[in-house]
Amino acid sequence: MRLAETREDIHSITRRWRREGLLTALVPTMGNLHEGHLALVAAARHEADRVITSIYVNPTQFGQGEDFDSYPRTLDPDRVLLEQAGCDLLFVPGQSTMYPFGIENGIRLLASPDLSGRLEGRSRPGHFDGVVTVVARLFNLACPDVAVFGEKDFQQLLVIRRMVEDLGYPIRVVSVPTVREPSGLAMSSRNNYLEPADRTAAGDLNAVMLAAAKSVESGSKDLMGVEKDTASRLEGLGFRVDYVAVRRAADLAPPGPADRHLRILAAVYWRDTRLIDNISAIQVGIPGI
Amino acid sequence: MRLAETREDIHSITRRWRREGLLTALVPTMGNLHEGHLALVAAARHEADRVITSIYVNPTQFGQGEDFDSYPRTLDPDRVLLEQAGCDLLFVPGQSTMYPFGIENGIRLLASPDLSGRLEGRSRPGHFDGVVTVVARLFNLACPDVAVFGEKDFQQLLVIRRMVEDLGYPIRVVSVPTVREPSGLAMSSRNNYLEPADRTAAGDLNAVMLAAAKSVESGSKDLMGVEKDTASRLEGLGFRVDYVAVRRAADLAPPGPADRHLRILAAVYWRDTRLIDNISAIQVGIPGI
Repeated sequence: MRLAETREDIHSITRRWRREGLLTALVPTMGNLHEGHLALVAAARHEADRVITSIYVNPTQFGQGEDFDSYPRTLDPDRVLLEQAGCDLLFVPGQSTMYPFGIENGIRLLASPDLSGRLEGRSRPGHFDGVVTVVARLFNLACPDVAVFGEKDFQQLLVIRRMVEDLGYPIRVVSVPTVREPSGLAMSSRNNYLEPADRTAAGDLNAVMLAAAKSVESGSKDLMGVEKDTASRLEGLGFRVDYVAVRRAADLAPPGPADRHLRILAAVYWRDTRLIDNISAIQVGIPGI
Repeated sequence: MRLAETREDIHSITRRWRREGLLTALVPTMGNLHEGHLALVAAARHEADRVITSIYVNPTQFGQGEDFDSYPRTLDPDRVLLEQAGCDLLFVPGQSTMYPFGIENGIRLLASPDLSGRLEGRSRPGHFDGVVTVVARLFNLACPDVAVFGEKDFQQLLVIRRMVEDLGYPIRVVSVPTVREPSGLAMSSRNNYLEPADRTAAGDLNAVMLAAAKSVESGSKDLMGVEKDTASRLEGLGFRVDYVAVRRAADLAPPGPADRHLRILAAVYWRDTRLIDNISAIQVGIPGI
């Protein structure tokens, strides 16, 4: 596995690959890699001839009071995992590589307001602007044919799909289903903030969401009722609920009766740790509609 | 010369060129082409194997009350000129090609505040945000190796150079000196708003700026005095002055005594027509510094 730290490094390596006609896939990460990330790398290997993984904890997507400083940084074990997973190029830029004119004087991107204003965007103002601001830089630096993102951050996935389509990047976005711990807890670097016993308890989030999906799929039409019941069940289990939402999967708008592909999304706190999860739910048709 | 109107058209043509190892240059324009644009196309031919010219009157870079609706649109003669100039591909996107999710829900880019807040950015708030918002789309759609811009819009040139560097685009920006009418008036599509006699009178703008440059180059250290004198001379000739500024050429900051490469920039109105121009001026060193 090769290592690139500067813009010149990554431009020159990827330019050579392009010239050789090799397809490249980019897996953007913030490091502290787990099985979920390795599933992204595996998907990238399947899609392309060369896999680039970036590790960069991007300050512009963290809000005031969020965990930018304490976010786990574990480059040495991450390198070993990526090497084993068959990654070809690890890109580890410093801040002056990603933001050569500083953050204040850097160009900012503002994510599509309709899509990014909802759910996570409401709870974390500016978060998706920071995401597209850094992902545009990664796309321009790596020039990948394919970019791979996890469904764990489902709204982020939609924001980036929209960005690619809106800005006209010649990049195909591939998504990978969430990888879970045995308890059902979606794998996340932020799970490190939980004690082992908490990790098991936090798995209930997924169990309660699965029950909500079952309710939708067995024909419940009172989606706001499903949201409310799900939130109370979670509160009863000791979670503090930020939001539980049943939405149209394509754009996270409130669903109409004819929308088949829904997504149930939740953000909760377990003690001080914020957890997000989402699962699919198919809304059954109303006879005669 | 080929014509592309959709994203699929331009992506497929430019992808083939890339695969064949051909270098491409993009000349972004708003059409209504004149000698100044043709000089950009000539430079592009010199720099690359294939030349793409885009014609798109971009609504997001016009402010409230500006001339978006009346901006001259002359596609048929433009095509003839580009064909004669040796352009290989003309890209003429419609609004839904450039902004497929509409302008309100589209991703916006905010230009670097330090550079874009000055001069034109002050007089035309949001103008450079609109410029980088459309140029990012053109870059992603055309994926050029080289992009060619005129020095006529000097601050725009710097804003785009900064954008390319900050966002990490693997694109080389090439600039081309301003082409002028015999009177000295910088060629511009907005000159069409002037009657022939006005065009000659407007040429005095350049003459007065040349005198200002001569004053700087002959050792005047009172740059604010030069700005003021130049503005009064222009007012005396019947121009209404928006700004006259002697700045550091690299970033348009107020120059220090050690800055050698300066730029004199002006924006004026002749009757209702806003004209901008800029020229270089070399500041002579102070002995002993």
